[in-house]
Amino acid sequence: MRTLARELKDCVGKEATIEGWIHKKRLLGGLNFINVRDRSGLVQVVVEDKKEVEKLRGMQIGTVLKVTGNVTEEPRAPGGAELHEPKIEVMVAVTEEPPVEIDKPLSHKPENLDTLFEHRALGLRNLQEAKIFIIRSQLLRYIREFLYENDFVEINTPKLQAGAAEGGAEVFKLDYFGQEATLAQSPQLYKQIMVGVYERVFEIAPAFRAELSATTRHVSEVTMLDVEMGFIEDQQDVLKLVQDLVYNVLTRVYTDCEAELKSLNAPELKLTPEFPSYTMAEIHELYQKETGRDVSQEIDLTPDEEKWICEYAKKKHGCEAVFATGLPVSKMKFYHMKGENGTARSADLLFRGIEISTVPQREHRYEVLLEQMKDAGVDPASQGFAAYVSAFKHGLPAHGGFGFGIDRLTEKTVGLANVKEAILFPRDINRLAP
Amino acid sequence: MRTLARELKDCVGKEATIEGWIHKKRLLGGLNFINVRDRSGLVQVVVEDKKEVEKLRGMQIGTVLKVTGNVTEEPRAPGGAELHEPKIEVMVAVTEEPPVEIDKPLSHKPENLDTLFEHRALGLRNLQEAKIFIIRSQLLRYIREFLYENDFVEINTPKLQAGAAEGGAEVFKLDYFGQEATLAQSPQLYKQIMVGVYERVFEIAPAFRAELSATTRHVSEVTMLDVEMGFIEDQQDVLKLVQDLVYNVLTRVYTDCEAELKSLNAPELKLTPEFPSYTMAEIHELYQKETGRDVSQEIDLTPDEEKWICEYAKKKHGCEAVFATGLPVSKMKFYHMKGENGTARSADLLFRGIEISTVPQREHRYEVLLEQMKDAGVDPASQGFAAYVSAFKHGLPAHGGFGFGIDRLTEKTVGLANVKEAILFPRDINRLAP
Repeated sequence: MRTLARELKDCVGKEATIEGWIHKKRLLGGLNFINVRDRSGLVQVVVEDKKEVEKLRGMQIGTVLKVTGNVTEEPRAPGGAELHEPKIEVMVAVTEEPPVEIDKPLSHKPENLDTLFEHRALGLRNLQEAKIFIIRSQLLRYIREFLYENDFVEINTPKLQAGAAEGGAEVFKLDYFGQEATLAQSPQLYKQIMVGVYERVFEIAPAFRAELSATTRHVSEVTMLDVEMGFIEDQQDVLKLVQDLVYNVLTRVYTDCEAELKSLNAPELKLTPEFPSYTMAEIHELYQKETGRDVSQEIDLTPDEEKWICEYAKKKHGCEAVFATGLPVSKMKFYHMKGENGTARSADLLFRGIEISTVPQREHRYEVLLEQMKDAGVDPASQGFAAYVSAFKHGLPAHGGFGFGIDRLTEKTVGLANVKEAILFPRDINRLAP
Repeated sequence: MRTLARELKDCVGKEATIEGWIHKKRLLGGLNFINVRDRSGLVQVVVEDKKEVEKLRGMQIGTVLKVTGNVTEEPRAPGGAELHEPKIEVMVAVTEEPPVEIDKPLSHKPENLDTLFEHRALGLRNLQEAKIFIIRSQLLRYIREFLYENDFVEINTPKLQAGAAEGGAEVFKLDYFGQEATLAQSPQLYKQIMVGVYERVFEIAPAFRAELSATTRHVSEVTMLDVEMGFIEDQQDVLKLVQDLVYNVLTRVYTDCEAELKSLNAPELKLTPEFPSYTMAEIHELYQKETGRDVSQEIDLTPDEEKWICEYAKKKHGCEAVFATGLPVSKMKFYHMKGENGTARSADLLFRGIEISTVPQREHRYEVLLEQMKDAGVDPASQGFAAYVSAFKHGLPAHGGFGFGIDRLTEKTVGLANVKEAILFPRDINRLAP
């Protein structure tokens, strides 16, 4: 029977067998320590017997071991216990040193990101690095649990599409048995169609964008959460949904992964159940008053304003998430609904300095939608849109939804500097491997 | 406050407001009934007041309504209650009849599949059709819950890859900023790499196969569950994992979705916690004895044998899932481990007449893996494999895993005839829309 590192303390005074990787080795002659890593943590093994020390000779980090020994309490050891008088079995011998130090986290400085990703497969064996993706896994889990509890049905929509769904330029194209196909930038059209079936649907899936920019913000493959909900009064219902989702999920993660987040130096979480909300005009005015910079001519919030308003809301309301409402119609997609006075029925959700989601009501009226499609230069009769417009013609209720990147949410939750650090094997204009 | 169809019975004697779509209309003059559909079911509304009847004039199936009325017990109505003396508000008027009858399920006969998929967006509004994807959503949920409980970490691996990971021919290729990329056929290499980090990982994501065949079995985009587990003794541990997963998930779905599955005429579930296991040779022999057909020269099980052994196991063991062991080495991929006497350390899992998964131990020994790659004509030094082989060089424990299609599992769970019926918007050689 294998004992995991996290269970070792329960075995003090008994014999136990562990299995794992050599994570650290200190062969000092008389007194030798090795740390063995398994999926739950580290075990310190004290090796005195010369025959056992001999087995470790030449064995490098990553060597897979099975070790049986006596469990002794040791407050200074990881987990509070260690193994003595071990019998060691080398299960997989590793005779070459790893190209990166696994015991120390790789540098996340911008100039070192290439090294980080080149050695991703080994760098992730660092305990700190691995925690980022444990937290990501938990975020995914809690998001789904929240949505199930609220009657949402999970859907899987095709990533191979005929034509670019949102009419954008930055799509990947491929030959599909002699026909041109595109890779889905989002499940937008499908999730709206599915409101006509289940009212409430979500999907978590890859989305593809042929981003030509090589900046830190741009990746060509992201993992997106997409949510859509019918029978709303107006966009306030959708804002409430995203607010409750974000509050619930982040509060849970910060509770359940407290130790992991602390050790990663994640910022303390400041959220109130209701997120403060400001119009674009109000934000422009507040920002100008405090910084002296005139941004009244900007259609959108400037990147600096996004940072500023999150800091402002944190100080004033104790909440790092803010809604920016009164977005201009010019920012709208054809499937968004217009509001009053040149604004869209939409808000941006900002969190820790950046926009993480746009949260609009959709235009659900068939005739109005057709008009907006025409205005946007989208042909409702084209192959990619036939089923979409048909769903409206045959009745879709008022609805709205949102999407956000799981990568971005992980980045901001952990407090990383670059979204790519929150992706296992990121893809950008320069990177297609590993 | 909106009351859902499923909550109506709790409101008997009170007034309630429902919102939903006209699902069925019977305007008989004096006594008029409409059925209103929402995400939880149907509500029968009895309309007598002429002014209210007038509002429904010309309104077709799909019209979105808000109806306030008195809730009366009525055992013959769906949900056991109906609405009387309604005040009707037409929220979205639909004036054109739907191209398909929503009240009746569309035909799933092979010759009618084109119609089924052409009108998918509306056809799914049929209550029976919708149940298929409720069950699919539950399968996904229960699979993840089982894996979380067993210490598995969810990962997201890239679908844009450099080179074809498994060396196969049927891959989609695309231009990736001037470089050739392929769409992932599976996360095989990544999930093995990640065993070196978390020991136990899984992913549920789309996978792409440029299948030139237009048979019922072939789709070009599938949703795959992929699982990988380290520190196994041998393939028996992996077989036990897939067995426990399938038993747990299907038993839960058959309990929680009993009514839905019955109404879809799903076959009764016959599973035992331990699945019977036969070698290929034993199956050939048993099959030949019973049918008189000589299959001893076949490397693999024939499709008819797959059906037969599942029926046999069902009768003999009360279990529709069977393992076929002793698979020949010739069926192996380069990353599988060889067993004794020309067999692979692997088994096929058969369920309800077809193979749903191959369940092998992987070759984790660096030198042996390199040999097997060379034998398979795969270059370990190529860009797509560098990180993969590095993970082995620096220590991967004995591991194994499996993948199976969520589409296939849904098809077999519900008892559908074609995997495409279990996919919302299927993709094959002839179908790229909707």
